[in-house]
Order: sequence, then C-alpha cells, then structure tokens
Amino acid sequence: LCGYEGKKEHYFSTVFEYLHAATLLHDDVVDNAQLRRGHQTANVLWNNSAAVLVGDFLYSKSFSLAVEMGQLGILDVLSATTNRMAEGMVLELMHTYNLDITEQEYMEVIISKTAVLMAAACRIGGMLGSSTHQEQEALKDFGLDLGIAFQMVDDTLDYTLSREQFGKPVGKDLEEGKMTLPLIHALNKSIPSQKTLLKELVGRGSYQPENFPEVLTLVQECGGIEATLQKAQHYVDKAVASLDIFPDSEYKKLMLDLADFVVSRKL
Amino acid sequence: LCGYEGKKEHYFSTVFEYLHAATLLHDDVVDNAQLRRGHQTANVLWNNSAAVLVGDFLYSKSFSLAVEMGQLGILDVLSATTNRMAEGMVLELMHTYNLDITEQEYMEVIISKTAVLMAAACRIGGMLGSSTHQEQEALKDFGLDLGIAFQMVDDTLDYTLSREQFGKPVGKDLEEGKMTLPLIHALNKSIPSQKTLLKELVGRGSYQPENFPEVLTLVQECGGIEATLQKAQHYVDKAVASLDIFPDSEYKKLMLDLADFVVSRKL
Repeated sequence: LCGYEGKKEHYFSTVFEYLHAATLLHDDVVDNAQLRRGHQTANVLWNNSAAVLVGDFLYSKSFSLAVEMGQLGILDVLSATTNRMAEGMVLELMHTYNLDITEQEYMEVIISKTAVLMAAACRIGGMLGSSTHQEQEALKDFGLDLGIAFQMVDDTLDYTLSREQFGKPVGKDLEEGKMTLPLIHALNKSIPSQKTLLKELVGRGSYQPENFPEVLTLVQECGGIEATLQKAQHYVDKAVASLDIFPDSEYKKLMLDLADFVVSRKL
Repeated sequence: LCGYEGKKEHYFSTVFEYLHAATLLHDDVVDNAQLRRGHQTANVLWNNSAAVLVGDFLYSKSFSLAVEMGQLGILDVLSATTNRMAEGMVLELMHTYNLDITEQEYMEVIISKTAVLMAAACRIGGMLGSSTHQEQEALKDFGLDLGIAFQMVDDTLDYTLSREQFGKPVGKDLEEGKMTLPLIHALNKSIPSQKTLLKELVGRGSYQPENFPEVLTLVQECGGIEATLQKAQHYVDKAVASLDIFPDSEYKKLMLDLADFVVSRKL
C-alpha cells in the first residue's frame, strides 16, 4: 500500500479524504463559492481551471489508492457511491430555483450528494474489519442517517449563523438558488399571502442578498428552521439506534459523540 | 454487466468512451473552449457547472462499469491511467505561457494528457483477450506511440487548418497559452531576431488572435510544422513496428489503418 505501514482503516480514510476534497473543489467551482471553512476557495485563490483539474487528480488518486487495497467488494461500494454523488449534484443543479421542489425531492438530493458518502465510509470501515453482513448494514444505516442529519443541520446553519461562525457567507444557498428544507417547509406551511411573498423574494432573478432578513423572518415564522432541526434529530436518533447491535466500546462512544455533534454543532 | 450481452471488449469500450468524454467536458471548461468537433461545447450550451458535474458523473460511471468487470489488474491500469492524465492536465496548466518549455517537458505533457489513455485502451484490449504479457506490452507501446503522434499532429493542425476543417478555431492553443511542439521547435531553431519577435508575439498578455498569421509565418520559416509532422511519423512508425509480433489479421489491419490515419488526417 504505497509503503504505508499503518492500519488499513487509516489508509482507507485517505481514500475518503481525497474523494471528499475532490467534490468540495468541484462544488466550489459549480457554486462559484468564495469561502470554505473560513478560507478563500481554491477557485478564488487560483482559478476554476486549477480547481477542476486538481479535483480530477484527487478523484483519480482516491480510486488508485482504493484499487491498491485489492478488494473488489469495496471498489464496488466506492464506485457506486461516487456515481450516486455525481448524480446527486446534477439533480441539485436541475432543481435550482425550483420553488415547487417537494420534500421528497430534497431528500433525494441530500441523500445522493451527502449521505451516501458517509454511508460508504462507515460501511467500508466494517468491510475492512471482520464485520458480519448485518453489522455492515448497521454501519451503512448509521452513516446514511447521520449524513442526512448533517446536511439538514447545514441547511439550517446557512440561515441562522453569522458569516464569522459559519466560515462561509449565510444566505449562500438562496443566492445559488438552492431550495433547502427550511424554505421548503416554510413554503408548505405558510398562509397564501406569506407564500406569495416568499416566492417573490427567493425566485430566479429576484433574490438579492438584501432580501435575506425578510426571507429569514418568514422562514422562522413558518417554523422552517425548527422543523428542519427536529427532522435532523429524528435521523440522528435513527442513526444512534442502528448502533444498538454493537457492544459498548471506545469506538462506539466516539461514533455516538459524533452523532450528538451533528445536531449540536454551531459551525 | 448491467444486462449487456455482447462481447466484454465492446462493453469495455464504453468505459473508455465515458472516461474520454469526461475529460473533454472538463478540458473545455478549463480552456473555456467554444467549439468541439464543429459543435458548441457543453460549457457554452449549458454552463460550466453542468459540464463539470456531468463530467464527474461520466468519470465515476466509467469506473463503476470497470469495477463490474471484476478484474483488479484492469482496474489497476485504468486508475493509474486516469491519475496520470489528471497530472498531465495540471502539468499543462502549469506550463501555460512558459516560453522556456523544453521539448522533453512538452513530451511529458502530451504523454500524460493524451498518450497514456490510448496506451491503456490498447493494453486492456489485450488483457480482456488472452494475450501474453509480451503481447500486452506491445499493444500498450502501440497505443502510447500512436497517442504521441496523434497529439503532435493535432498540435500542427491548430496552426494549419481552417476553422471549418478543424471543427474548432485555429490558433486556439496560443490563445490558451499552450506552447506546443511547432512553436517550441521554431523557438529552438530560430535566429535571435526571429526568436525575440516570436516571444513578443506569443507571450502572456501580448498574444492576440491578430498575431496569428505572423506567428504562423515564423513557425513555418523555422520548420516547426514540418519537424513536428516528421516526429509524429517517427512515432507512428514505432507504433506500427510494435505490432510486428502479431500475425496478420483483420484486426491488425484496422490498427495499421488507424496508424496511417493519425498522420494523414486533415481534421
């Protein structure tokens, strides 16, 4: 394994880090994002070309490393996952400014673009160990539900955090025409006059950053943030329950802590 | 194999078509290209985001299909190839407007970005059949040398064809700061006054499409086009010689015809 002498689980974490970094590089090009984790994005620091190509490099490097592990079952999971993620990103792009997007369509987007990666990371961790099929399924479910919850919380933070806390500008999703659950819920629960106003404020060509405070007020009045956080908590609970089949251990505790962090995080 | 009932060689050609299409989609974003094969590029017809994401989709789809074949040796070749190609693209980007690029550096770029893909396609064809190791190496060499020749001829066509013939604008490489062999040769063989003029005409920030006729005249005077085509012919001859170990057959004839086409093509 390229001379690496540590544990294969550690080695494989590189596969996921590279893959994840590759998708972030491309995402930031697609979203024309300026900030990521409080720093300028690669597309701003260098340019789109460098970000696309270095993303491609990390992407293929991730696959080379995985191939070196020599386990076809793992490659199968990994390639199906990256394929689904790419589909998810295209799906999200197709729903840009779609004010009629349903909660089910939103779920399809976040499962594909975010949750399947966490599901694969957890599942492959089990595949590298000597887990049973049932245990691998449980790990996959944990990752999937945690990924869903993570993305839902992320989508609320885009409404509620300050730019300094979030490391990227708030209201960015609206600027990019991304209709996330807080807004979808608000649109579904609003009275007709609120709904009309909301649609006017966030539609294609009409959304401006100065609309943000008014949109936020409407989303909050309709309970969009609260409902999204509740749903996220529901998925965290499901994720945690998936681990019931495992005996207590240092590692299980870390995973449970991670699950708590996903809903409690403020950045 | 996804229900595909034909030959596995045909199936695997899809892997290469998807991979190739993915790199073209990303290349056209990186080069901000407007035309490809006489048609508007995806980045123009839709936008950069769609081209990046659909490229990612085809890229991962290519890998999924390859994984389904279930042959680790093939996956090893494929992932090493895509990795090298990504490196080649980054390398080319780093050499943009590098007027001091050597012929050796140019070779490294075209081998990585173009030739290794053809080498892998030919080699994997052999791996899917029942070729010996020696035959696989011969097929790989054929593809590699053919790929080098193909790219060299492509780089001359960017100077010599009309836009209508080429399906993309001529002089595009210079516009993108790509220093290809015709120019490198001209810079190496020019007398000091020509060299100074050439460098002024093609340098970063100074190249304009209206400089093209003058650059072309200088490149031709210094024998840049002719020398590149001669070198391409040398690699085609090498490629053809690699096939000597195979007995005559319908398939060998097609490959030899392809080798001829690479240097004789006018578009």
